[in-house]
Amino acid sequence: MTATHAARRARLAAALAAAEVDALLVTKGVNVRYLTGLASSNAAVLVRADATAALATDARYIETARNLCGDVEEIVQERDVAGALAGSAAAAGLRLGVEAEHLSVAAYDRLPGAPERTAGLVEELRAVKDEEEIALIRAACAITDQAFADVLPAIAPGMTEREIARALEFRMMELGADKPAFDSIVAAGPNGSVPHHAPSDRPVARGDLITMDFGALRDGYHADMTRTVALGEPAAWQRELYDLVREAQRAGRHAVRPGASAHDVDAAARSVIAAAGHGEHFGHGLGHGVGLEIHEVPFLGPDKPGRMEDRVPITVEPGVYLPGRGGVRIEDTLVTRADRPELLTRTTKDLLVL
Amino acid sequence: MTATHAARRARLAAALAAAEVDALLVTKGVNVRYLTGLASSNAAVLVRADATAALATDARYIETARNLCGDVEEIVQERDVAGALAGSAAAAGLRLGVEAEHLSVAAYDRLPGAPERTAGLVEELRAVKDEEEIALIRAACAITDQAFADVLPAIAPGMTEREIARALEFRMMELGADKPAFDSIVAAGPNGSVPHHAPSDRPVARGDLITMDFGALRDGYHADMTRTVALGEPAAWQRELYDLVREAQRAGRHAVRPGASAHDVDAAARSVIAAAGHGEHFGHGLGHGVGLEIHEVPFLGPDKPGRMEDRVPITVEPGVYLPGRGGVRIEDTLVTRADRPELLTRTTKDLLVL
Repeated sequence: MTATHAARRARLAAALAAAEVDALLVTKGVNVRYLTGLASSNAAVLVRADATAALATDARYIETARNLCGDVEEIVQERDVAGALAGSAAAAGLRLGVEAEHLSVAAYDRLPGAPERTAGLVEELRAVKDEEEIALIRAACAITDQAFADVLPAIAPGMTEREIARALEFRMMELGADKPAFDSIVAAGPNGSVPHHAPSDRPVARGDLITMDFGALRDGYHADMTRTVALGEPAAWQRELYDLVREAQRAGRHAVRPGASAHDVDAAARSVIAAAGHGEHFGHGLGHGVGLEIHEVPFLGPDKPGRMEDRVPITVEPGVYLPGRGGVRIEDTLVTRADRPELLTRTTKDLLVL
Repeated sequence: MTATHAARRARLAAALAAAEVDALLVTKGVNVRYLTGLASSNAAVLVRADATAALATDARYIETARNLCGDVEEIVQERDVAGALAGSAAAAGLRLGVEAEHLSVAAYDRLPGAPERTAGLVEELRAVKDEEEIALIRAACAITDQAFADVLPAIAPGMTEREIARALEFRMMELGADKPAFDSIVAAGPNGSVPHHAPSDRPVARGDLITMDFGALRDGYHADMTRTVALGEPAAWQRELYDLVREAQRAGRHAVRPGASAHDVDAAARSVIAAAGHGEHFGHGLGHGVGLEIHEVPFLGPDKPGRMEDRVPITVEPGVYLPGRGGVRIEDTLVTRADRPELLTRTTKDLLVL
């Protein structure tokens, strides 16, 4: 993997001229990990336009850094990781860039020489995955699918949202997840109208739609999946709502291709929901990139810029939320491919009636 | 709990004059939660010197906010939560402060009117806990203790570090944790010399010291505990190292009291280790506050400012790390009390031999 990391740093180095800097101080943790392999809560890496790099971390991580990042030209032990690397860049007379979307105002103020603000340089590189990364996301999605299949038979009236969330998380870990990719959402009955509902002690009941939004994290890479199921035979309005969201989700998936704009992919799904009179009940974007972060570029939404590229793992997750009544969301993780997207979430999208 | 949140906002409001601002834009997630009860990945709260407040969040959380935060004077639905609240403060002619240690440079640049930089205003309030908060941390520590007791008998040669970490995490969740408080550390044999070692697939073996650093998260509050155990009868150097760290940990604990300086508490433990010739093998601070974050003020270290107050949950966790050989760390979570600290971590500090 060190060859991979060096190649990533070289790609970043090649992008520095356009950002009008001689070196970039990378302080965002997942970006440091992406460029060096080091996962640490206190590390920074300086990547210069000549593709050489310096890595700084503190005593807690220094031995790991030395073992893991032998290809990085310089490794320094320092608690103030940003200050140390910015100082070395200043001493060398380099025009320094910082990650302005990540670095705090206070941390910026402490750096010498008023560095340039840059945005999204590493994130842009990270959006397009190599096949090793896609394999990791595929594995995380497979764990997520399997956990859903394994837990589903246990869901019955009286079980609480929290218990369902725990069961999914336990099973993912038993299946090899390092941990849940994010705080699982289980929203049943009227709670389903809250897109990011935190699982409560409310027992699920016959007649509920149950929305489960969860995923596995493994080796740093995330999976993200949502299914809404019916507990007992669904009412006509519930089935209609489900069919509508399913149709919108299919339209969104089919719009995902290299070259498509983030706006158009979103619109493909949103227009289906709007045509059914539920435009105001779909208050979030259609999806987001997935990788070392659970939410990363590209984002799909009415006002999101940019176009899809090849090999971009992304979610497609339309929802309709009816205040006081409930909601439906269906979400897959898929990857853009030249001909058609590769679906990483393999669970059926038929309405499952428990 | 809404009375609690209003009281916290009133305390913050009272601190604004000294910071020379009329209102504070709070954007750090745990701080928003502390002041309003709302846990959201996209929310901000504006607290004015007159103790009125405005809360902003997006469509995913707005229904939860309206249900949960009825005592907040104004709740607005907006994706750009910081921009909306800063705009309203600017329109009212208020001198606005921001959380400069949290807000990114880019987010700051997008706000109107160059707000004042403030630091740690809410964190300072959060350091001193009320008894409800301490009860939550006590409960998280009890789960952590119990999980350790339950998993210990299963640890045997051949089990990997990763399997031990998983077993601890599973058991904590079975006992009621919402999730692990942080990525668990299990470091055996030579890996013990890396303070923040990520659990590997290395099987533990007879003759290893095994350091386990883990904790439960429940209802937003964290527990933090470390124990080092011996697998098989320890060698003389291992027992000596253990006894040294135990003695240092005791000295550190006994120095914890309201009024003590962060430096002096650290020194109480560090001097024991330095006197034994291992000063250079203890490369991190002695401890940190624990609450809605796993690491929060106050921090205990040679160069840390400030004095302890009453009702401050804090860790005491000295360690000695011998490169290539292994290490020992012993960590409790405790709370400052007027007479002597209340120990929340109740597991024995005798060297356990498995």
